[in-house]
Amino acid sequence: MDCIFCQIVAGKIPADILYQDEEVIAFRDINPLAPVHLLVIPRKHIPSPVQLSEAESSLMGKMVNTANQLAKKEDIAESGYRLVINCGQQGGQGVPHLHMHLLGGRQLSATLG
Amino acid sequence: MDCIFCQIVAGKIPADILYQDEEVIAFRDINPLAPVHLLVIPRKHIPSPVQLSEAESSLMGKMVNTANQLAKKEDIAESGYRLVINCGQQGGQGVPHLHMHLLGGRQLSATLG
Repeated sequence: MDCIFCQIVAGKIPADILYQDEEVIAFRDINPLAPVHLLVIPRKHIPSPVQLSEAESSLMGKMVNTANQLAKKEDIAESGYRLVINCGQQGGQGVPHLHMHLLGGRQLSATLG
Repeated sequence: MDCIFCQIVAGKIPADILYQDEEVIAFRDINPLAPVHLLVIPRKHIPSPVQLSEAESSLMGKMVNTANQLAKKEDIAESGYRLVINCGQQGGQGVPHLHMHLLGGRQLSATLG
């Protein structure tokens, strides 16, 4: 229960939650890198995509669908957006709980970081 | 059939294909932004995640699983990697055929582009 995202899931740390269901939660990143910067995470503590079992992989579809719906709500579906999953140290993964970044509202660079 | 990725799928344009099955193909990006830079795409021409139907969302799980397997093969699963899906103009989507970038082999920036 040291995981900050598990504590958000459990309601022990406040977050600006935009969507939740039995599988995923979406909330605003507290250190936004773009005008729209949301995180979509599974409720379940999966450390990274590497630990995602094949049986759990449908979660990824759910996470992408959730991000797409939120992009429409945030009015960036037309202008464009980026979905990013960082994995491990060189990937720049900040929190060891699988999460998908949804970034938009500005021109994102072609370098991909 | 103007789509360059559809032409790779059809074998009409050569690519360094690392994996393929009935649903997805993975190949090296011809303009690599990192020591390892692969693309995982569905065979089917889906322009962007916005056009992904809920029924097709299992494809995303398949694409992530494929990327994870390739990260292991390319020996970047331990060091870390980044998965990126660009959508639309501000997202920096270069080719209008859904694709997932797999980047690794160097420290990726925390800015996410």
